Amino acid sequence: MENGQAGKRAALIVGAGDATGSAIARRFAREGMVACVTRRSADKLRPLVEEIQAAGGEAVAFGADARKEEEVVALVDQIEREIAPIAVMVFNIGANVPCSILEETARKYFKIWEMACFSAFLTGREVARRMVARGRGTILFTGATAGLRGSANFAAFAGAKFALRALVQSMARELGPRNIHVAHVVVDGAIDTAFIRDNFPERYALKAQEGILNPDHIADNYWHLHVQPRDAWTHELDLRPWIEKW
Amino acid sequence: MENGQAGKRAALIVGAGDATGSAIARRFAREGMVACVTRRSADKLRPLVEEIQAAGGEAVAFGADARKEEEVVALVDQIEREIAPIAVMVFNIGANVPCSILEETARKYFKIWEMACFSAFLTGREVARRMVARGRGTILFTGATAGLRGSANFAAFAGAKFALRALVQSMARELGPRNIHVAHVVVDGAIDTAFIRDNFPERYALKAQEGILNPDHIADNYWHLHVQPRDAWTHELDLRPWIEKW
Amino acid sequence: MENGQAGKRAALIVGAGDATGSAIARRFAREGMVACVTRRSADKLRPLVEEIQAAGGEAVAFGADARKEEEVVALVDQIEREIAPIAVMVFNIGANVPCSILEETARKYFKIWEMACFSAFLTGREVARRMVARGRGTILFTGATAGLRGSANFAAFAGAKFALRALVQSMARELGPRNIHVAHVVVDGAIDTAFIRDNFPERYALKAQEGILNPDHIADNYWHLHVQPRDAWTHELDLRPWIEKW
Amino acid sequence: MENGQAGKRAALIVGAGDATGSAIARRFAREGMVACVTRRSADKLRPLVEEIQAAGGEAVAFGADARKEEEVVALVDQIEREIAPIAVMVFNIGANVPCSILEETARKYFKIWEMACFSAFLTGREVARRMVARGRGTILFTGATAGLRGSANFAAFAGAKFALRALVQSMARELGPRNIHVAHVVVDGAIDTAFIRDNFPERYALKAQEGILNPDHIADNYWHLHVQPRDAWTHELDLRPWIEKW
Repeated sequence: MENGQAGKRAALIVGAGDATGSAIARRFAREGMVACVTRRSADKLRPLVEEIQAAGGEAVAFGADARKEEEVVALVDQIEREIAPIAVMVFNIGANVPCSILEETARKYFKIWEMACFSAFLTGREVARRMVARGRGTILFTGATAGLRGSANFAAFAGAKFALRALVQSMARELGPRNIHVAHVVVDGAIDTAFIRDNFPERYALKAQEGILNPDHIADNYWHLHVQPRDAWTHELDLRPWIEKW
Repeated sequence: MENGQAGKRAALIVGAGDATGSAIARRFAREGMVACVTRRSADKLRPLVEEIQAAGGEAVAFGADARKEEEVVALVDQIEREIAPIAVMVFNIGANVPCSILEETARKYFKIWEMACFSAFLTGREVARRMVARGRGTILFTGATAGLRGSANFAAFAGAKFALRALVQSMARELGPRNIHVAHVVVDGAIDTAFIRDNFPERYALKAQEGILNPDHIADNYWHLHVQPRDAWTHELDLRPWIEKW
Repeated sequence: MENGQAGKRAALIVGAGDATGSAIARRFAREGMVACVTRRSADKLRPLVEEIQAAGGEAVAFGADARKEEEVVALVDQIEREIAPIAVMVFNIGANVPCSILEETARKYFKIWEMACFSAFLTGREVARRMVARGRGTILFTGATAGLRGSANFAAFAGAKFALRALVQSMARELGPRNIHVAHVVVDGAIDTAFIRDNFPERYALKAQEGILNPDHIADNYWHLHVQPRDAWTHELDLRPWIEKW
Repeated sequence: MENGQAGKRAALIVGAGDATGSAIARRFAREGMVACVTRRSADKLRPLVEEIQAAGGEAVAFGADARKEEEVVALVDQIEREIAPIAVMVFNIGANVPCSILEETARKYFKIWEMACFSAFLTGREVARRMVARGRGTILFTGATAGLRGSANFAAFAGAKFALRALVQSMARELGPRNIHVAHVVVDGAIDTAFIRDNFPERYALKAQEGILNPDHIADNYWHLHVQPRDAWTHELDLRPWIEKW
């Protein structure tokens, strides 16, 4: 059937490989949307898909490299054709590898931008085209404090995250009046992930006093943004633990 | 009984005279809190109090001039003593009267600051003292786009709103680690009020397409901020209609 | 003679009591302008006036409380009538007294705003009226990092400095097209003053490696702003030592 | 001779193909520096080099594609080896081609970033390595208002210019304490160029009232930044005509 089953709506989570992306996928699935989750290798998404399905939700995994235009076009096309119209897209890719500007390589500088910004442009544009045709939709991007302020050893990551924020502002200003809600979520602080647990045990210990971000609570805010009525849209939102310095 | 009836919590809405303040009061009352609503003259708050009570909620009106330290101290003291501990305070006073810098009077420049900023300081400080002693609480301030950017004919209002934002940032950074959630809501756009209806009919006509802010939707976002778990607090949030230029 | 001696131009330095104000006064006097220097008590300005005169420049001291509208009006009137048209005004008053929000008094919160912001409004407006009538002029305000970011214990100072920045932006946007150059200088770091020398000796020791601001170098930048041709005006400029964290 | 002739210092102008780059080259040459000017094709730089030489200055043209790491490395190496130590680098490349986000191509989005940001990273890093070894130097980047604010149809350009600003902030914070002055110049408004003259005649007509930026005046500000003593460095400076909306 054209556009998938009647009444269904898809939530496309680009970069569902980490704790935050997974939590967002679960949250949108819980609300009745089909969670279309992507990362470069679909295999690694199996546990997430099974978890969502076990909870009674719908989820489909897609292997796609969001940095490749043809893969992004094909991904969006496939979801819209086979699953459902994309009602919301969450872009959640980012990779911070701090480095002195003096040692930063051209390759890594490029790759960080390509992952955190260029793929946001590709997926954002491609989804926006569909949404504009329908006259509705939500596009959310996960940002970081590095998107607001450059710092020593953060030239590459700050560059990518600044550029991402520029993308959000530009899209929001262009697409808002076409009924597409585009917003930027500044996640500032350590998140409760295996990576933090294994590499920053002192930081992770703050979990006992809610000192690191719970991915489910991040996801609640993405859902909140998605359901805001259009007379009161938020375009930028920060999230950080109560004890975080900022 | 000390601290009012057991288990009760008060929501203090400073500046409940307009549509936004009223909607916030109704929202917090609906959640079971005692809406303590203030404006200079308590009489004018009677319809709001009756409306909340008719809906099964609790509300108490207080006449208080938030620019007067002794009145603010007495207000907070009375609520804490007679009603309930203040769990959340919403500051919602502001008055924009545009004027060329060349014609602005010292009196008006001062009064706009006194209303929109000085009273925010007084109420924020006084409530914070109680909350810090208890180790919990939420303090929310209504800001405006003029708090982010100065413009021709807006020296007084922008000055007050910039200063308000400085207050929020300073309080949030000092009190966050003491478990007090302090946040700034940037309301950007016309709100569905009698004032807009009567004075800006063309603007008001945008209501038909959700082009002006619905106070109840603003209130939903204040409630959302209040219930955020402390591992994922928002410190600044903007709200504007989808068609608003920004 | 109407408007003082033919060809003369006055540089009004409001708050010439500190090292920065004095350096700016000397700099503008060196360029041939009559340095009209003010602080609350004119007596304390005598050494500065004598120093400028000894260097072959012209300077006149005025005792005026910049927080009092009538004194500001009289001051500007007197300079324009007796000395020369005011070609440039530099506002250089500020007083930072850090304090926890919980302990901040209403009186001090007000006084810091009154000194650092309200007097800026009064002097800025009054001088702008004269400049607009002539169709030219420069108005410069000394800001601080606290004008960009609120911090723990800085609610009062940040509030005043944010409000000052709002004033500058509003005036610049309104008066720029009337050929009045309005700009904000963000001075970020310790300045070479007796106060720093006596109270922060470790900080002061950084002078040996140019780690604190030299008031004469600050003054050079004010002069640079004043002489910018109107096709390339700067509206905000930061100044900080090379080793300063920011 | 190692490091070129004794006492000589080079000013590297990356992107000297336009009016601004040329003016900056002339300005630094006038101060006695060897203007090392680059663009993709060295041929087109001949008139500029001859003009500088005719005025008694020194200039050398280099054809180099600043987006190619090996060309940038070779360029910097050659200048340092054959001409003189690079005392100042000015990065002045940028290309704005407005486009709806819906129509923006991946190729153009990438190319705008590559020109305005990636080549800034490459040249900035390469020059910084030499300057850090010597313990001194100035690196200036030409930004734009699009670096501060995203807008409809500006996703690509704003993205590149935001990322450039992140680069400047990151480099300034890392390299400042190593005595390298890194700064960002926000040029906001039409510049007096053949392009504006030929394509925007109404805008160009504003030249009669100094309503467009004179490249020589822009250059004066770059020079001003370069000669700031290190106790009072500026890290961001805006330049716009008096009548410009901002």
